[in-house]
Amino acid sequence: MKRELVAVVLAGGAGSRFWPLTTNKIVFPFFGKSLFDFSVRDVLPKEVSRAVIIAGRNNRDALGAVGLPIPSVTVLQQKPLGMADALLAAASEIAGSELVILIADDLTDSGLIKRVVARGRTSGAFGVIPGWKTERYFPGGYLKIENHRIVGITEKPGEGKAPSPYVAISGHYVRSSDVLLGELTRTGTTGGDDAYERALTTIAQHEEFVMEPYEGNFVSLKYPWHVLDGMEYLLSRLASHRGKGVSICDHVVIEGNVYLDDGVKIFENTKIVGPCYIGKNTIVGNNNIIRTSHIGSNCVTGFNTDITRSYIGDRCWFHSNYIGDSVVEGEVSMGSGAVLANLRLDDGEIATREGDHKIPTGRNKLGGIIATGVRIGVNASVMPGVKIGEKCFVGAGVVLSVDLPEQSFCQQKTEYILGKNTKA
Amino acid sequence: MKRELVAVVLAGGAGSRFWPLTTNKIVFPFFGKSLFDFSVRDVLPKEVSRAVIIAGRNNRDALGAVGLPIPSVTVLQQKPLGMADALLAAASEIAGSELVILIADDLTDSGLIKRVVARGRTSGAFGVIPGWKTERYFPGGYLKIENHRIVGITEKPGEGKAPSPYVAISGHYVRSSDVLLGELTRTGTTGGDDAYERALTTIAQHEEFVMEPYEGNFVSLKYPWHVLDGMEYLLSRLASHRGKGVSICDHVVIEGNVYLDDGVKIFENTKIVGPCYIGKNTIVGNNNIIRTSHIGSNCVTGFNTDITRSYIGDRCWFHSNYIGDSVVEGEVSMGSGAVLANLRLDDGEIATREGDHKIPTGRNKLGGIIATGVRIGVNASVMPGVKIGEKCFVGAGVVLSVDLPEQSFCQQKTEYILGKNTKA
Amino acid sequence: MKRELVAVVLAGGAGSRFWPLTTNKIVFPFFGKSLFDFSVRDVLPKEVSRAVIIAGRNNRDALGAVGLPIPSVTVLQQKPLGMADALLAAASEIAGSELVILIADDLTDSGLIKRVVARGRTSGAFGVIPGWKTERYFPGGYLKIENHRIVGITEKPGEGKAPSPYVAISGHYVRSSDVLLGELTRTGTTGGDDAYERALTTIAQHEEFVMEPYEGNFVSLKYPWHVLDGMEYLLSRLASHRGKGVSICDHVVIEGNVYLDDGVKIFENTKIVGPCYIGKNTIVGNNNIIRTSHIGSNCVTGFNTDITRSYIGDRCWFHSNYIGDSVVEGEVSMGSGAVLANLRLDDGEIATREGDHKIPTGRNKLGGIIATGVRIGVNASVMPGVKIGEKCFVGAGVVLSVDLPEQSFCQQKTEYILGKNTKA
Repeated sequence: MKRELVAVVLAGGAGSRFWPLTTNKIVFPFFGKSLFDFSVRDVLPKEVSRAVIIAGRNNRDALGAVGLPIPSVTVLQQKPLGMADALLAAASEIAGSELVILIADDLTDSGLIKRVVARGRTSGAFGVIPGWKTERYFPGGYLKIENHRIVGITEKPGEGKAPSPYVAISGHYVRSSDVLLGELTRTGTTGGDDAYERALTTIAQHEEFVMEPYEGNFVSLKYPWHVLDGMEYLLSRLASHRGKGVSICDHVVIEGNVYLDDGVKIFENTKIVGPCYIGKNTIVGNNNIIRTSHIGSNCVTGFNTDITRSYIGDRCWFHSNYIGDSVVEGEVSMGSGAVLANLRLDDGEIATREGDHKIPTGRNKLGGIIATGVRIGVNASVMPGVKIGEKCFVGAGVVLSVDLPEQSFCQQKTEYILGKNTKA
Repeated sequence: MKRELVAVVLAGGAGSRFWPLTTNKIVFPFFGKSLFDFSVRDVLPKEVSRAVIIAGRNNRDALGAVGLPIPSVTVLQQKPLGMADALLAAASEIAGSELVILIADDLTDSGLIKRVVARGRTSGAFGVIPGWKTERYFPGGYLKIENHRIVGITEKPGEGKAPSPYVAISGHYVRSSDVLLGELTRTGTTGGDDAYERALTTIAQHEEFVMEPYEGNFVSLKYPWHVLDGMEYLLSRLASHRGKGVSICDHVVIEGNVYLDDGVKIFENTKIVGPCYIGKNTIVGNNNIIRTSHIGSNCVTGFNTDITRSYIGDRCWFHSNYIGDSVVEGEVSMGSGAVLANLRLDDGEIATREGDHKIPTGRNKLGGIIATGVRIGVNASVMPGVKIGEKCFVGAGVVLSVDLPEQSFCQQKTEYILGKNTKA
Repeated sequence: MKRELVAVVLAGGAGSRFWPLTTNKIVFPFFGKSLFDFSVRDVLPKEVSRAVIIAGRNNRDALGAVGLPIPSVTVLQQKPLGMADALLAAASEIAGSELVILIADDLTDSGLIKRVVARGRTSGAFGVIPGWKTERYFPGGYLKIENHRIVGITEKPGEGKAPSPYVAISGHYVRSSDVLLGELTRTGTTGGDDAYERALTTIAQHEEFVMEPYEGNFVSLKYPWHVLDGMEYLLSRLASHRGKGVSICDHVVIEGNVYLDDGVKIFENTKIVGPCYIGKNTIVGNNNIIRTSHIGSNCVTGFNTDITRSYIGDRCWFHSNYIGDSVVEGEVSMGSGAVLANLRLDDGEIATREGDHKIPTGRNKLGGIIATGVRIGVNASVMPGVKIGEKCFVGAGVVLSVDLPEQSFCQQKTEYILGKNTKA
């Protein structure tokens, strides 16, 4: 008799690197759904009969509301101490089961996890781990492979030092939760954030772990600009659609796959170049250009706006703006002529700051990261990679090159030179 | 035998509250005509045989030129001391007559004054006063009514203290000018600016005054932003029209009632959403959007301009501008990217200053008030409610949040950080 | 037997007045060709059998590459000491010939030089000089004429002091180079930069010089804004053309003579008003307006750009810009909302600086003069007549009213007023 197959969903990260966007990134909205729907719900193999979601204090409430077609329970991880700690926190819920371990902020093609589970159940292997083949260095756990067996996982080996081109990603199948929990207990969680990888490496000495190779899409939403990567990937899977009550005026050009949700209105002389998603009841104004972007529901893009490769959430208002390679979370308004610039004058890589650290983003094109409730004045310019916290106001004409903490009001100091106009 | 019915037109206000716009507000232009045409000429009942226009020093010359279909005379009121003083200044011209008293900066539906006069002449009442029913507090004279008779007028009672919901507005019918002049003489004009209302209250003790109720449109042009109220009202009465020599290029969309005067040209990809008026020989450029606005004659709106709920006078030049909820008197030019912002970041009510006083405008959307001959540089931003006096220059990139007196030249102090470009 | 007719091409000027544009102005590109092609190659009479090009150190290499359909040799003029010095530098190459002397930065109608040479060879005159009739004062050499003979040339006589309305321009025919060289040697080159004119005046005492009157176009490219004059003239001669692989999207309007070179793409809702030239593989984006302009090859004009009466070289990138009456040499990019302003607020004549001197440009409309490799940030404003040297960066939001030397990085000093947002 087979054991019960349980999906363990790791969703307990603090999300602080995702600042200024929501700490509930697991439910970050895409297409009127949430990241969770794409990273977990859509990829669940049919053999899974129960889900155990491990949440943090920051997102337990939000995760309670996610819907799955199978019974699920949410377990609280007291502190964001990594995967090993998370699994141990859920020990009583997962004991005596087969496991498939999902990372809730990782996006993969919907068939991958299903293949992993099918292989785990039909082969004799103790574990199956998806190995994402990547050319470019990725700061994750790399698989060490000998004779077609995984013999270890090296966490963040550094560029050029990876034992293989394969990164272990979401969707680990483990035949026995008890073996894993036992080893995790022995390993302990105090030796660094790679305790899980070390435990797996130990088990792999006597049990067979095999790799399910994967060359498809993989996006891990750690930093806020990863929203753009996630969006790009999810848009690539989107089909064209015209919802109910969609209205499209004359001289509108729509190219490629464009999903227009119910009640969308598009005014004259606007061009939409897919893939694009436009959410419910959003109004795309006259003379716009929208390319490769996600626009949430109940937005108004106004006259003459250019939105390119950007994520826009719900209830945003624009008006003659340029928004390039930017993330605009929701309830944001921008005055006429305000720009989210997306390119340095020297075309160099755009870095952001995280406290005192400079974080390279790996992007030469990156605009602003704008949290919920921000308002930006007319003719303001937000420099590439700048992050603006929730409910900030940015005054007219400001050239903003620093991040703004939540609820700031930033104006530019103005000194007038006032004289008599002798030329009038 | 009936007495002669004389229209007394009160036009002697100093107009200083109308700053920075013309002190001759009585002839403020709408649709190639003037305020006077709408507030006086169009509403005159046919029973009126003569008009006495009471002008101030500031506008006597302009008022001499207004045209009426009946004989008229202009009387000078030496100082702007209110209605009582104005009527006494015209005493010799109006003695022995029936009167209908018109306030030249008040706009009402064209039938109201006619109804007032008809009722005055057919009923036995001594006087008829139009009572405008308003939900929102208006700083005017409120009617006190008992047993269907007006028993008094309370000037600016303060919010919540009005004796009725009815404000006395332009168009008072009085059966005997002599009774009125006598009482005004007794009352005197030194006891405050409500001498007229006090005199009427006294007369009402023994003569019958009745109210003609009115729930139509009423706009009193006291402050410059009232031009927008007047415009909105007058636009609502405008029918569609295509003048001689009008030229409309391809891909132009015109919706609603739009009056295009002779010689108007509209270039490609422009949308006009009525009600709108476009004056003679004005050129509306490519890729514009014009909504609910008045544009005077001989303007050029240039490329990519957005004019929304705004009054634009004659001979203005725009170019890639946003002009929202603004008054632009005439002969104004704006450089590419200049914006008249119309909304505070907090969506709050917009106030203006009058000397040391802060004046609430009652508007959450209000742009700039720009007098004749102003020029605004490229990428300049004028903050909501800012007033700019005649013949001012505003430099490129200025973020203007203060009013400018006539003939100012305002630039923003600029300090460059100049270095070697090591990235080129 | 006739002597050999040699074309002497004067191309040895230092070109420093042409700053910030290339010192090789003789090969300044127009329509994928060069100035030289229009000023020399196209105007060469068929009777010319050989060309002697006199180059300076700054442009000898570039001039070596120009192509002529007849044998040619390039001679180095050591220093830019004027026409007399240049001709003497080429003495050994031109001895014993008939001459036609061309000035390589002067543009004339293609028939003029041919008429001059034909007249020189058929009449008995020793010399023929084209006399350009001009109403407005031009700082050149004016012809003094008596009894249909030229009796002298007065160099820069000053306004109102010209001996005739005729300016001596490119294309002097001289029957004997030896007579000219002899007189130039006697005159010497040390007495000022009018040595050539003085020598001609002396020869004219005993030899017959006649004038070929000319009322056609004449442009001398001395200062960088003369590129606009040259462009305007050359555009006026351009016919409509659609190259191979040209693609024009829907709702594009093209009026007048527009030359679209191979591979040009024009996106929706764009209007092009000729005369215009668009170079190979250039992409004109959506919702643009392009009027009376030259755009080089491999440019992208982006969304919503307005280019009016401007010269744009190769490989430029724009995006929601206004570029009016400007010269943009090549490899220039401008961020969204950046503007090259072309009009003073007082509509006055625009002056530029050359060291400590203020140079009037004779233009009321003149934008920026932007050299190769410049990058301009979003919402920056470049004031009329400002010159920016090669490889400069101009930061976002800068209002630039000074010239920038090569490879400068110019930012505007920004001081933030940062507070708590109590209104959010």
